[in-house]
Amino acid sequence: MGDYMAEPITGYSELKEHASNPESERYIPSCMEMYIMSLQKSLCDELATIEGKEFTVDRWIRPTEADGSLGGGGITCIVQDGQVFEKAGVNISVVHGTLSKQAIQQMKSRGKELFGESVPFTAMGISSVIHPINPFIPTIHFNYRYFEIPGENKQWWFGGGTDLTPTYLNRDDAKHFHTTLKTACDGHDKDYYPKFKKWCDEYFYIKHRGESRGLGGIFFDDLDYVSAESALSFLKSCGNSVAPAYIPLVKQHINEPYSDEEVQWRQLRRGRYVEFNLVYDRGTKFGLYTENARIESILMSLPLTARWEYMNKPGPRENELLEVLKKPVEWCSE
Amino acid sequence: MGDYMAEPITGYSELKEHASNPESERYIPSCMEMYIMSLQKSLCDELATIEGKEFTVDRWIRPTEADGSLGGGGITCIVQDGQVFEKAGVNISVVHGTLSKQAIQQMKSRGKELFGESVPFTAMGISSVIHPINPFIPTIHFNYRYFEIPGENKQWWFGGGTDLTPTYLNRDDAKHFHTTLKTACDGHDKDYYPKFKKWCDEYFYIKHRGESRGLGGIFFDDLDYVSAESALSFLKSCGNSVAPAYIPLVKQHINEPYSDEEVQWRQLRRGRYVEFNLVYDRGTKFGLYTENARIESILMSLPLTARWEYMNKPGPRENELLEVLKKPVEWCSE
Repeated sequence: MGDYMAEPITGYSELKEHASNPESERYIPSCMEMYIMSLQKSLCDELATIEGKEFTVDRWIRPTEADGSLGGGGITCIVQDGQVFEKAGVNISVVHGTLSKQAIQQMKSRGKELFGESVPFTAMGISSVIHPINPFIPTIHFNYRYFEIPGENKQWWFGGGTDLTPTYLNRDDAKHFHTTLKTACDGHDKDYYPKFKKWCDEYFYIKHRGESRGLGGIFFDDLDYVSAESALSFLKSCGNSVAPAYIPLVKQHINEPYSDEEVQWRQLRRGRYVEFNLVYDRGTKFGLYTENARIESILMSLPLTARWEYMNKPGPRENELLEVLKKPVEWCSE
Repeated sequence: MGDYMAEPITGYSELKEHASNPESERYIPSCMEMYIMSLQKSLCDELATIEGKEFTVDRWIRPTEADGSLGGGGITCIVQDGQVFEKAGVNISVVHGTLSKQAIQQMKSRGKELFGESVPFTAMGISSVIHPINPFIPTIHFNYRYFEIPGENKQWWFGGGTDLTPTYLNRDDAKHFHTTLKTACDGHDKDYYPKFKKWCDEYFYIKHRGESRGLGGIFFDDLDYVSAESALSFLKSCGNSVAPAYIPLVKQHINEPYSDEEVQWRQLRRGRYVEFNLVYDRGTKFGLYTENARIESILMSLPLTARWEYMNKPGPRENELLEVLKKPVEWCSE
């Protein structure tokens, strides 16, 4: 328990047993759950030290529904209205059940082969959004997840990503962030970074504004074309690169002075963040449409405060950001 | 021009000519456009007097697209960051073009009979959202619109509604508001108010929160089962009831003192408003998915500022509101 923010959703001894036996059916999911638990712990510790305040921890368990459609739980860790972080959340969830018809359809359309009427699944992931107060510290979001359809025709895949959303453009920050992610990717496959960087730019796009949500990072899904061990090892490299990619930016800008005008611009960018998450984000929409979902955890990604102005006129420094949001940059080859 | 906020989208003399000739093909749309222009003017005047500041007026025209799919324009009137109103917008739009395949499909699914591959249309409406600063003055939204598919198989319908979204529950306000709308409806058809009140409760529902956006009002669409003259006359009664339903509430609460805590609760309610508009509202979604739409006018409905708190704990007065949002009340028979 000392290593985690709370008791894991799957029993601790059960996890340890399966995670130490590569022959076990539940070797990979157990390793994954232990990994996301430890990543949650190390990030919360690091952020709490900067904030000077411990995270609030909510461990929630939902008894399996009568029809077996959904059960599981999660651990939501949050700092809200802090000195450094306006809202910082690091969530774990571990759920299982049977896929809804809608979900089966959606997965088939993505090329998955699913058999039978009742398709059981296990899904787990870590998901985090950190909205700082200082407009010169960017917002970061990351999410890493594992999905499994157990049984005779067992299928599994990993997905996830890490991306940066600043209020003002800082080219050095962008380069540091992207280079750190690229290094994590390159250790596994030289094709990963260019492929997942492009995917990220395409995914976090606010179509009605004609602009990206932020400066991107990496994004991938359906990673099942290497061994599960290799995929998990890649995912760990991604998860482990979150702190080195982000924490230096926090520390560098934490004491940078800022004006009311810069806060207003931050608020408008927070509004765009809300627009993306509520209108386009697949994870958020999936959550909102799920019966009895834990809405508080799903909408934890929204900023504490946001602003919408009619016909805001950005100045030159604001336009510097808008330009790169309209035309993604190759930060690692600049 | 003295009667309107700006030059109407359709030429003024053209409008007058058709609106004075009941035999004209364009009698109803011309009467409608003149009506929404005059309603916009009278409301802006009344609100500007209360605010002590004139509305900003943007008249915008979009040249018809090369493929004929969309043309027209609008008049956006707005007060932002005011003394009484945080954001108050009253918009007109008058557009024409040919329906997209998506729109044809959607209308057919609603039971419309549409013929041919290329379906021309004319649509016009007034749309308004007023977000006041004082948490004891409720937010109001209304929208009244006319849709026409001209030609051999001419079809037309009216739609619209008015609804109230307070921060705190005030039963007298709710009764006054609903009674005023009911009186406007009853003058035309005694079935309208109960039917359209129910429709409103069903429409403005934030499913993932299990609560309504506000205290409702009236909402209707596809009104084509009476003569166009009767329908327009009903719509005018609805439009004319906006000020008597709402302005007394503004005047009554304008000087009511409020605390920081009450402002925070207002901000959380504004967050819910954003959730409804971005996740569920058909008009907003239609706008966001329209190529080259005027996003600034569409998203004018969003509040200037909003807030999302993880696990907010409402007090007794906040819960009073939540209770009626969870279970709609028959305000006129209380």
